[in-house]
Amino acid sequence: MSVYQATASAPVNIACIKYWGKRDTKLILPTNSSLSVTLDQDHLRSTTTSRADPSFQKDRLWLNGSEDEIKDGGRLATCIKEMKALRKQLEDKDSSLPKISGYFVHISSRNNFPTAAGLASSASGFAALVASLAALYKLPTSQSDLSRIARQGSGSACRSLFGGFVAWQMGELPDGSDSLAVEVAPREHWPDVHALICVVNDEKKGTSSTAGMQRTVDTSPLLQHRIKHVVPERMAAISEAIRARDFDAFARITMQDSNQFHAVALDTEPPIFYMNDVSRAIIALIVEYNRVAVEKTGKLKAAYTYDAGPNAVIYTPKENVKEIVELIIKYFPQAENFKDPFGLFGAAGVQGKVVDGFNGAVSKPFGVGAVKGLIHTRVGDGPRTLGAEEALLGPDGLPK
Amino acid sequence: MSVYQATASAPVNIACIKYWGKRDTKLILPTNSSLSVTLDQDHLRSTTTSRADPSFQKDRLWLNGSEDEIKDGGRLATCIKEMKALRKQLEDKDSSLPKISGYFVHISSRNNFPTAAGLASSASGFAALVASLAALYKLPTSQSDLSRIARQGSGSACRSLFGGFVAWQMGELPDGSDSLAVEVAPREHWPDVHALICVVNDEKKGTSSTAGMQRTVDTSPLLQHRIKHVVPERMAAISEAIRARDFDAFARITMQDSNQFHAVALDTEPPIFYMNDVSRAIIALIVEYNRVAVEKTGKLKAAYTYDAGPNAVIYTPKENVKEIVELIIKYFPQAENFKDPFGLFGAAGVQGKVVDGFNGAVSKPFGVGAVKGLIHTRVGDGPRTLGAEEALLGPDGLPK
Repeated sequence: MSVYQATASAPVNIACIKYWGKRDTKLILPTNSSLSVTLDQDHLRSTTTSRADPSFQKDRLWLNGSEDEIKDGGRLATCIKEMKALRKQLEDKDSSLPKISGYFVHISSRNNFPTAAGLASSASGFAALVASLAALYKLPTSQSDLSRIARQGSGSACRSLFGGFVAWQMGELPDGSDSLAVEVAPREHWPDVHALICVVNDEKKGTSSTAGMQRTVDTSPLLQHRIKHVVPERMAAISEAIRARDFDAFARITMQDSNQFHAVALDTEPPIFYMNDVSRAIIALIVEYNRVAVEKTGKLKAAYTYDAGPNAVIYTPKENVKEIVELIIKYFPQAENFKDPFGLFGAAGVQGKVVDGFNGAVSKPFGVGAVKGLIHTRVGDGPRTLGAEEALLGPDGLPK
Repeated sequence: MSVYQATASAPVNIACIKYWGKRDTKLILPTNSSLSVTLDQDHLRSTTTSRADPSFQKDRLWLNGSEDEIKDGGRLATCIKEMKALRKQLEDKDSSLPKISGYFVHISSRNNFPTAAGLASSASGFAALVASLAALYKLPTSQSDLSRIARQGSGSACRSLFGGFVAWQMGELPDGSDSLAVEVAPREHWPDVHALICVVNDEKKGTSSTAGMQRTVDTSPLLQHRIKHVVPERMAAISEAIRARDFDAFARITMQDSNQFHAVALDTEPPIFYMNDVSRAIIALIVEYNRVAVEKTGKLKAAYTYDAGPNAVIYTPKENVKEIVELIIKYFPQAENFKDPFGLFGAAGVQGKVVDGFNGAVSKPFGVGAVKGLIHTRVGDGPRTLGAEEALLGPDGLPK
């Protein structure tokens, strides 16, 4: 008897132009286009195995080994249903294909980064789900078409269907068929873009992004101006910066847009805060680091960006990562040694220090634990189909 | 020989609709109108004595006993020059008046609140300066006309020329002659509006408001929308709320505008932050306090507002002050006993507590010193002319 099973992994993406606001909450259609950098799956990824089998009694899904309920009409159910429908179309056209679209599926998914890291896993998770079902069903569907389905699981998941630099075009149609991800440039175009994630200790759970963004849509007088007049220009300008590998322009727009996203969150009633005093201190350090760089070379060397939480992601060309790790560690001593995946530091490890001309008074030093960890990664590729040896379901169809 | 001397005091004001941005930095003409509550001089005030004397060698000014330089063409010099010019007009019309406009002046000014409290003293200070010179020169000038001169010392000073609820009309003319303060309602119209100032510990000096607001004008894409489309509506709505003594509407608009001011500060390049984690926690407490109130009565009971610093000012009808002091002290234990100018608490003093139904998890409790002090005051009157016994200059024309 045949086993119909496939495994895929998908990357995390971090937006430079932020998605904040839905015009359709069911279809997950955004109020503005957005653009992100896909991070390297060698460091951060979700992996998902899907199997279709006539013996299965219902669709089931396990996340990090714990079963999640698949609610009727919910986001998971929608994605699975849409993928089965695409398979059904193939089967209807080619009667030689096994009719597995009618089988229930078992799905097991894992993230290789701890939930406690505060990194959103819904983007990589839904992208891996869609990628594994696409592999299971042997769909010829394009990544952009798959991104439309991932979008209905979690908006930003659509951007994790591509590597490199990815735009989510908001689209205009009420059915959402033109709201999908497209590649602006592959990783190979600009592999020099690295990222340092500063995992910031968070004492309390902030407003969920799903609830928060709708409150902003409902109450912020500034959001409409951002949507209509600011984002379209920024999308064009940052796409051009990426095509030209112009890090200075890329950094400037990225920081502007992170700030503006948090500004409209604050313009919400009641206001939403995601950044805390540690986040603000990291901004102050990067602003000063850039001030020194601009004084010396006229160009920015780093860009901070913050999603719906206090963690900083700092984009920078590879040559600057060492300086930035030293800078962050100077102000935020670490309990554990810096994992150095690119071998920037020798056996002696990292010593905190600042570049010449840096005004050390821009932030106070913090205690151990204010920044819980540093993850060094870079721009990465899109979803990968993995071999059977990486499968997360055992022969019994249950998580290994 | 005659002594030409007068003493006046002037109040602090805290804006509900924020002033942020100049269209003319020399004349101090704002990019939008603003509106404030004048606080009671019984608690917070600047007092200024001015004397004109033929023996004086130059204009001199002392602030809290230390001499300040009066720079040529600077803000102090401008205010003094304009006041002398008004006196000169009187003297030219009535030859019986002593010709004191040609004398140099000595000016001594004191605030009754410590600079360390982080309360802006420039508004009350320039208002007291102008009020004392108006008394010295026996000017028949209206408060609005005086406010035009105080405005050139410090923009928000123009609002301290009136008690009660005060609008600074931005005006349109290039010479600034229509940019002045007007009374929306006197304190007697709505004396029930009380204020609790939470003095928040600040570890570092933030961006000065003068520098910060121009950076926002130069770089924030959201500011123009605020100026053109948001503030005009809010000015009309809050004026109406004040006339109707509608605290619910007053509170809602006040909080919206505080949030939006900080939002455009954050939308600035590099971003400007005035609120810190303590400020955010106070917002969370007031939001939750209001949530309970709305659930019970449908109406808001308190409004926070933040100027260019981390201090919270909480407006509330008098009947709620006790609950709010108890709430703040519950989360922010105080080193010193609460000064209780309105006798809300008995000899036992304040015990921290929350109202029924309050979700205590909205903030963690902080340690002693996070909020350094609490000042309870209320809406107050405009500048007062004081008797000779309050003079701050001795017979020698130097500060006492």
